[in-house]
Amino acid sequence: MAKHNSGAIIQPFRQVTGTVRVPLHRQVYQRIKNAILDGALAPGVRLPSARVLASDARVSRNTTEIAFAQLEAEGLIERRVGAGSFVAAAMPEFVGKVNGARASRRPASGNHNSLSTRGRRITAAAKTDPTVTLAFAPCMPSLDAFPLQTWNRLTARRARLAGRALLGNGDPRGYPPLREAVAHYLNTARGVQCDAEQVVILSGTQQALNLTTRLLLDADEPAWIEEPGYLGARAALQNAGARIVPVPVDEHGLNVERQIKLAPSARLAYITPSHQYPLGVTMSLARRLALLAWAQRESAWIFEDDYDSEFRYDGRPLAAVQGLDSGGRVIYAGSFNKVMFPSLRIAYIVVPPQLVDAFIAARAVTDGAAPALAQIVMTDFIAEGYFSSHLRQMRALYRERRDLLLEAVVCELANSLSVEASEAGMHLAGHIGKAKDDVKISEQAAARNFHLPPLSRYYLVDRRARPGLILNYAGTSPENIRRMVRTLATLL
Amino acid sequence: MAKHNSGAIIQPFRQVTGTVRVPLHRQVYQRIKNAILDGALAPGVRLPSARVLASDARVSRNTTEIAFAQLEAEGLIERRVGAGSFVAAAMPEFVGKVNGARASRRPASGNHNSLSTRGRRITAAAKTDPTVTLAFAPCMPSLDAFPLQTWNRLTARRARLAGRALLGNGDPRGYPPLREAVAHYLNTARGVQCDAEQVVILSGTQQALNLTTRLLLDADEPAWIEEPGYLGARAALQNAGARIVPVPVDEHGLNVERQIKLAPSARLAYITPSHQYPLGVTMSLARRLALLAWAQRESAWIFEDDYDSEFRYDGRPLAAVQGLDSGGRVIYAGSFNKVMFPSLRIAYIVVPPQLVDAFIAARAVTDGAAPALAQIVMTDFIAEGYFSSHLRQMRALYRERRDLLLEAVVCELANSLSVEASEAGMHLAGHIGKAKDDVKISEQAAARNFHLPPLSRYYLVDRRARPGLILNYAGTSPENIRRMVRTLATLL
Repeated sequence: MAKHNSGAIIQPFRQVTGTVRVPLHRQVYQRIKNAILDGALAPGVRLPSARVLASDARVSRNTTEIAFAQLEAEGLIERRVGAGSFVAAAMPEFVGKVNGARASRRPASGNHNSLSTRGRRITAAAKTDPTVTLAFAPCMPSLDAFPLQTWNRLTARRARLAGRALLGNGDPRGYPPLREAVAHYLNTARGVQCDAEQVVILSGTQQALNLTTRLLLDADEPAWIEEPGYLGARAALQNAGARIVPVPVDEHGLNVERQIKLAPSARLAYITPSHQYPLGVTMSLARRLALLAWAQRESAWIFEDDYDSEFRYDGRPLAAVQGLDSGGRVIYAGSFNKVMFPSLRIAYIVVPPQLVDAFIAARAVTDGAAPALAQIVMTDFIAEGYFSSHLRQMRALYRERRDLLLEAVVCELANSLSVEASEAGMHLAGHIGKAKDDVKISEQAAARNFHLPPLSRYYLVDRRARPGLILNYAGTSPENIRRMVRTLATLL
Repeated sequence: MAKHNSGAIIQPFRQVTGTVRVPLHRQVYQRIKNAILDGALAPGVRLPSARVLASDARVSRNTTEIAFAQLEAEGLIERRVGAGSFVAAAMPEFVGKVNGARASRRPASGNHNSLSTRGRRITAAAKTDPTVTLAFAPCMPSLDAFPLQTWNRLTARRARLAGRALLGNGDPRGYPPLREAVAHYLNTARGVQCDAEQVVILSGTQQALNLTTRLLLDADEPAWIEEPGYLGARAALQNAGARIVPVPVDEHGLNVERQIKLAPSARLAYITPSHQYPLGVTMSLARRLALLAWAQRESAWIFEDDYDSEFRYDGRPLAAVQGLDSGGRVIYAGSFNKVMFPSLRIAYIVVPPQLVDAFIAARAVTDGAAPALAQIVMTDFIAEGYFSSHLRQMRALYRERRDLLLEAVVCELANSLSVEASEAGMHLAGHIGKAKDDVKISEQAAARNFHLPPLSRYYLVDRRARPGLILNYAGTSPENIRRMVRTLATLL
């Protein structure tokens, strides 16, 4: 067993200094390990002692001792008292390189970092639309106007006194008093008909979509989606392997009758009836009833995404489709995240009683409970009246901003942008001339720091049908609303 | 237009009193709505005035006014000043019943509440194993020993001073200082080699499994899983549509060589190398290197679930497989939930740099960020030394409990339960006689309030191969450990 010149092995160390990220002992360990695995240090070969190596490498004895200890723990070296340290005799040959050709179902690109087909699709979607990486967050509420001090005070109060019971997994459906509060709120304010037993607390609408599509749809089953429609719903349906059927939206919402004539079979329909995303129209009563009748006939499901129904400025609020349903066909979803703040991560669904167990089981497989402490604080926030007060203030604020936006559009964009009438919600859709490229204009606006997603992105079938932009006003200051309109005036 | 006798319509109301859940005005609204939708009140028919109806039904005028207002808002009635209230003239025919036969790909069971095939499988799994609904939580840490006061104090401190920035969506990878802390911890304590850039904070291991399988596996691609193996991993692979290949585990861990001879092709291998779940063996260095070599040759991925590696009682900790890998094949996953407490919902993965963007994109589609405040508090908990102190205390506590369990087993179960040697972790696997039914014994133990999952449940192929029970000792008091063993002695 030749005695290796430790200088030869450790030559690189002399240039090495410890960094915060990679401690010196780890670097020593790594060098020796690599040398062993690469075959530069053969099995059975004797290594310099830790003392000698430390001296040669100008590191402390402690450093080399730690490195040797780890190498020994992993069985890469053997340390024999009185004899020294040796590279382990028995080790499988480590093949570090990729061997020749291999049979593979993937395209022979030589790219051994390839994602699945599904993975490539997800990543591609993220690259084309940066909002995709923001969890499809279409509408940012006004964070400046949120009563942060109150929220912090309530949170600190609960945090200080948190009991040990909070440490364990709670009710899989969510904190029971919050479910009661949500049920009560939905019954009185939204015309939903449910018990607290039917309410499941989740972390966001996306989770609700994923759970629902997984539970109710098999691969290749048809599902209706509004055209244009919400990207988050499209993604969930794609991930469930559904056959997505885009159904055009007109001024009364999803065109149910037309679709029934074309192809009535589907397992599920996704709708945003209060305030269609992205066009903003409200689904008429006639269409709601027609859809419910269809669902009954076809034994189909309806996913009602009631995402910003708290903010209605004109007219009376329409009761939820769920409240009109006597056949248990509707899964109703809502969220506190857009009404309160995005990082809250509390949303809810109301499911027909016979589906409750299935939803709990599905949630166990996918994880993602809403935060325990936040659920309790949210319940306090509702019970102590802060929530209704917050809604009132936001309603007034968003109405002001909507009116300001409409005014500015009329003044500066009368001939280039035609805005959909909108009695509700946190954004408007504006249409531009048919010949224009809304993706390009959106990119130009983004370069000036205005996030105005292009409408064409929300169409599955006919992307150039009605080019336009989504104008998110709720979380935008009046100053920025004016700037946004002026910018658009120059771009259009 | 005949004037209906309001008495005939409202007969049922006289028996009705308001309830907290269903306000009286809602009941009135509902009765009239149903009458209209059922056709009992035909289009164009004149209704009693709100005043008259109130008087006849012995409810307040306000009650009927509210009900009429809602009916009018929904377009079900029209109120004409001076003329009265009328059922709306134009409405589609509402078909409330299921019409005859319909073409359906579902079994013609007449059950219009049917879940998808996938949905039925999920629900069935939940029914057979109640732990499935606890998010597959195999090991409960000792909640009594958790430093709750310290945690609450840190939480309240941060909650009081939470800034507005916390309200928005943070870095999709998680709170950067926490990612730094995790990277540092993993590099020094676990032999993982990574930058903070490669760390993604999630809410649990299940989420990590779902994201990984979705991104890296297409349907029908083979994936290796340890046999017996973790149910959460099995569920994630099933949900991804993978072709699950169970690979037997022996005293050195996953039998890589045997599987390579049988069928070397797979896209991913799931391993628990520190402390195999459920058997508890540690994967030998030779097997680790063989698996890494295989992954390089096959361009396959390795999901390393390092779930309770913080608790090692004998021998030196082995470096993570990820640390031995020079080919970027390993996705490393760990969790604070078992080390701290289950409702914390903070876990992490370390991904090869080229996969970071893909994981962020996939997370956007599935939602489920770890709670913002808890991430900050966890960072403080680590930075201020409480975490390492907590680990030390838990290590000592769990070692005591393990030793107590082993002692008790030797005393009372020497001939009926043979326990796998276990140098680490929070549970032991115990084997019983081949002829015995571990499911039955598990149920009998559950009837006495001891949760001892049957080993056979964790096998895919040969369920009767090695019947046994999982003995979770970490979160079990010494008293209950003794009771548990005594109970088993009577059952076996």
